[in-house]
Amino acid sequence: MRLYTALMDGQEKLVVGFGEDQMVYLLDDLGLNFKDMNDLICNMTAEQRQSLYEMAAEGINEKAYNVGDLTLLAPIVRPRQDVICLGINYDEHAKEAGDYSEEAFGGERPYTIYFSKRVSRATGPKESIPAYEGLVDSLDYESELGVVLGKEIKAISKEDALKAVFGYTVINDVSARNLQTRHKQWYMGKSLDGFTPIGPCIVTADEIEDVQNLNIRSLVNGELRQNSNTKYMIQTVAGAISELSQGMTLQAGTIIATGTPAGVGMGMKPPCFLKKGDVVVCEIEKIGKIENRVE
Amino acid sequence: MRLYTALMDGQEKLVVGFGEDQMVYLLDDLGLNFKDMNDLICNMTAEQRQSLYEMAAEGINEKAYNVGDLTLLAPIVRPRQDVICLGINYDEHAKEAGDYSEEAFGGERPYTIYFSKRVSRATGPKESIPAYEGLVDSLDYESELGVVLGKEIKAISKEDALKAVFGYTVINDVSARNLQTRHKQWYMGKSLDGFTPIGPCIVTADEIEDVQNLNIRSLVNGELRQNSNTKYMIQTVAGAISELSQGMTLQAGTIIATGTPAGVGMGMKPPCFLKKGDVVVCEIEKIGKIENRVE
Repeated sequence: MRLYTALMDGQEKLVVGFGEDQMVYLLDDLGLNFKDMNDLICNMTAEQRQSLYEMAAEGINEKAYNVGDLTLLAPIVRPRQDVICLGINYDEHAKEAGDYSEEAFGGERPYTIYFSKRVSRATGPKESIPAYEGLVDSLDYESELGVVLGKEIKAISKEDALKAVFGYTVINDVSARNLQTRHKQWYMGKSLDGFTPIGPCIVTADEIEDVQNLNIRSLVNGELRQNSNTKYMIQTVAGAISELSQGMTLQAGTIIATGTPAGVGMGMKPPCFLKKGDVVVCEIEKIGKIENRVE
Repeated sequence: MRLYTALMDGQEKLVVGFGEDQMVYLLDDLGLNFKDMNDLICNMTAEQRQSLYEMAAEGINEKAYNVGDLTLLAPIVRPRQDVICLGINYDEHAKEAGDYSEEAFGGERPYTIYFSKRVSRATGPKESIPAYEGLVDSLDYESELGVVLGKEIKAISKEDALKAVFGYTVINDVSARNLQTRHKQWYMGKSLDGFTPIGPCIVTADEIEDVQNLNIRSLVNGELRQNSNTKYMIQTVAGAISELSQGMTLQAGTIIATGTPAGVGMGMKPPCFLKKGDVVVCEIEKIGKIENRVE
């Protein structure tokens, strides 16, 4: 199923859709009352999940909405903790990043790079990205597969890691390259307000047969910029979850952004960064797309 | 005032002390009921704070406890977000870090380094630090001044920054140097469970006349290792809060670890890392000390 958060009459509402159907339903109307997506992730029972699929199979008579008519927020509006990110996790992107800044990115990468970004409020799938003129002179996009964990784990094996996944989403890991480079560690250049568009929904893990075989791309003003597949990840989703969990408890609701393929603005020759008015689309097969204007 | 969190009859209780007095009181007994320290930070009114000082001045008749008899937890047991850290923020430490690993630390640092560490549960002032044998071969300590924000801020000036501080505490930014270096970004080597002892209390900001003039030190098994003063910080507390807040909303309850002076294990020649059984004390003038055994 696909799970959305929508703004309706000033309130955040959880919304569910099934398969490719554009018609969606309020979870409240289906008798499932959760405070927000984090509450659902932590507390939805297997029986409740099963009942939703049964309702969908039988046909739902409650009020239906066209998902295109809704004001969508990020599926998780307020992440419970900072978003964990993988750096330089696609081969061709490793090359372009090293070309852009040897000091900050270069050299061999035998081990996965993990960092985090502050997300006090995630940006919705159609909300704007702030340009931060005066502070940021090199605003960039990164289309990434987002992984949302469904339960608390510690020291999980690679084989069991995907069992802890609640679902998948699309993340634009917006980055201020000047801040990312000059402050050496990437945290600050990744953590400005509005730098984490997420959406359009969380697709539950049971609907993604092979997470390491999904087309992923981005477009800026309609021009194709990134065009790859999750099979080209250097560290797999399962590998990252397992490695991170060896020393660190990962809580239910944890969001992991799994790195971006080649084709970001800093990789172009000459670099081509985002400017006010640009529209960035990030899109992943079987999940959907987010479309954010720089303002 | 000094604010503690103590474990009493299996429950987390908020505790307050005044001045140098070792006798402390349950906030519940004083008619102030908060769920936890985050709740207090976000919701204690100026009137409630004033009433506490008035009670203390008049003499409190409620049950008093000797703080030394309490089982103290970290004052904030579950930080609302990852702890924001400053890297290489004392001159002499910049030199020893560069000597240890040119690749990871070297070069000029005209700008402050910011990174974060995951803290799902902060370690109490007398709780143990896990050794992680097999995963970590270079466990290190970093005595740091911790800053706790009392209100949500965005784009605050350096002049106004300290007005947003709720109080100060002591943090040991425990680090696995092998993970910190090999994963390039420092996040993972800083974020293992048990790597963030905090305490013994939060001293409210009104009691610290000059946060840039506090002696700070650490001892390992009684041997003095770090011995400096916050006046040697490269980036000040006010400067860091102001810079971070330019693009990033900082929420009430945000914890900032302001960097460590020279004298950490990786700086010794040869490096001398922590091993099982070692006891690390981190201590800051006017705040107190935390004492954690490696186990």
